[in-house]
Amino acid sequence: MARVTILGAGAMGSALATPLRANGHEVALWGTWLDDHFLQEFADGGPHPGTKVPLARGAEVFTSDRIADALAGADAVIVAVASVGVLEVSRRAAPHLTRSADPAHRPVLGLVSKGFHQRMDGSIDLMPEAVREAIEDPGAVIVAIGGPCKANEVAAGRFTATAFASTDDGRAATALADLMRTPDYRPSVSDDEAGLEVCAPLKNVYAIALGYADGLEQSTGEPWHNLKSAIFARASEEMGLVAEALGGRVETAFGLPGVGDLEVTGLSGRNKVYGARIGAGETAAEALEHMREAGQTVEGVAASGLAAQLVDSRLGSIADRLTLLAAIRAVLDGAQDPLAVIRGAL
Amino acid sequence: MARVTILGAGAMGSALATPLRANGHEVALWGTWLDDHFLQEFADGGPHPGTKVPLARGAEVFTSDRIADALAGADAVIVAVASVGVLEVSRRAAPHLTRSADPAHRPVLGLVSKGFHQRMDGSIDLMPEAVREAIEDPGAVIVAIGGPCKANEVAAGRFTATAFASTDDGRAATALADLMRTPDYRPSVSDDEAGLEVCAPLKNVYAIALGYADGLEQSTGEPWHNLKSAIFARASEEMGLVAEALGGRVETAFGLPGVGDLEVTGLSGRNKVYGARIGAGETAAEALEHMREAGQTVEGVAASGLAAQLVDSRLGSIADRLTLLAAIRAVLDGAQDPLAVIRGAL
Repeated sequence: MARVTILGAGAMGSALATPLRANGHEVALWGTWLDDHFLQEFADGGPHPGTKVPLARGAEVFTSDRIADALAGADAVIVAVASVGVLEVSRRAAPHLTRSADPAHRPVLGLVSKGFHQRMDGSIDLMPEAVREAIEDPGAVIVAIGGPCKANEVAAGRFTATAFASTDDGRAATALADLMRTPDYRPSVSDDEAGLEVCAPLKNVYAIALGYADGLEQSTGEPWHNLKSAIFARASEEMGLVAEALGGRVETAFGLPGVGDLEVTGLSGRNKVYGARIGAGETAAEALEHMREAGQTVEGVAASGLAAQLVDSRLGSIADRLTLLAAIRAVLDGAQDPLAVIRGAL
Repeated sequence: MARVTILGAGAMGSALATPLRANGHEVALWGTWLDDHFLQEFADGGPHPGTKVPLARGAEVFTSDRIADALAGADAVIVAVASVGVLEVSRRAAPHLTRSADPAHRPVLGLVSKGFHQRMDGSIDLMPEAVREAIEDPGAVIVAIGGPCKANEVAAGRFTATAFASTDDGRAATALADLMRTPDYRPSVSDDEAGLEVCAPLKNVYAIALGYADGLEQSTGEPWHNLKSAIFARASEEMGLVAEALGGRVETAFGLPGVGDLEVTGLSGRNKVYGARIGAGETAAEALEHMREAGQTVEGVAASGLAAQLVDSRLGSIADRLTLLAAIRAVLDGAQDPLAVIRGAL
């Protein structure tokens, strides 16, 4: 049995206690300053405010001031805070990670948080690149964690297949997967960190277009399934192109992190709902305002801007093939006729 | 302008008159003996019984006894009858196809009908293989037509991206695509007939499993999105394996004919509904009986049996990797615990 520390007691971080505890590991769940207000009630058996599922029995909870205690002796650490907090939390955690000169005994740092990271100069890093740079001597090997994974389902122990990747030929990913794998939580392992990291934010962007097709159905009273499927296929292809251009593999886009995650993201979720509002006739700005009023952050909007930066700074060679990505950006920028723009990109 | 004859006035055959007439071609729509009863009313401007959409203006309608008239002078022929009738209709059409020694002037025969074809000895052919054999001297080059394509949307002129393939390096597919392409009907072209033909029936089988996940949501009151996404990703992977094993390409499974068509088939349709009944707690036999009572043929059921034959006869080398396909077959055969069987396959 190992000791695993989860940093971030949001929906996903808290949910991962379920497979870990099912395997009998010692689990320390540390909440950020954003989690402190519900942490005691959650520790006492109350439902999580995000997943509505109680914490796995036996997991120990640590408030934000106790990061050192939470990390003491951790064999593996999972970072599951909101993307905006990843570097800050990683920096705070770094001094407390177990250090060892022997790579086989360095803890693995599972990175659940996803997103494109923008540097001060505007250029874009994938998240693990940014974390490695931020913590300098991490004392840990990073394992990127992705794939179609709704937190409430993981928390409740329903079947979930995910993807783990590490650049050390997948060794660290295998080690972490072995700690976490249960009959209902099933990581597959690869070395394709770049492919996995690319798909996670991009699928949020493409889900806006999938939602757009759903919204057309509302505004026209007719199904647009053929359009939605064409968008799905093109989105998959473009994720593969981006993955490959950044040193990853096309297959990753055609696996759980790509088409798998796009499937679930296009079924439900905020990005899809936002796109559906545009399809139903709202302008992109009106739709975003309505989402804001409902307290709903649309991750794909920020991701689309960062993706545009990524294209400009690192993907010049394939930029003219990413037509759907460009079309979504144009729609979010207020294009007059979204259907014409999206149709023209397919 | 060309003369194009569509054989089969069902939903899809009738729908294809829309892009053809939009391009100003002469269109002859021939109905089988199953279509005769509604053909006059449809010709007179009534809605099609399948799509509820009227026939594109200017298309000429031919009853089943007039196949020779319908085919006279056809530059291209599209076969769009139910799978079970493809060989019979192809044989009847063959004597009337324009013959020419020059391959550039032989008519193209677009094959919309899909499915695995079982020979008398039980072995399985892909549909174009069977058609080529049945008509011996076809006087035409076959173009396989697939991809996500709901007939009612094509008939109404809503955006549809499809895939055309012909084994002559895609030349015939290109010729037919050039006749049919409109701003809203958009064929892409390849030479991968096998890949395209494999995906079409297999996606109906896999859609049963996607529906199963939806049905679990009904019976448990909880979402099973992660399971559905895992099924989707595995189904895509298995379609790629089968395509490759039969001489096709993995990319086809990851394009419109594969993930694109699986997306639309998993959204709606009879295969999905049948799977959802099983997920909701009916046995496979009960669910099939209920579908039959509602007059709903579940194509994926027959396809799953034929796919099993295909695996036995031609896919021995990859049989043990097609775990989801085998699991679906086991569920349809009455496995006691479908969730355990499907979960075990992922």
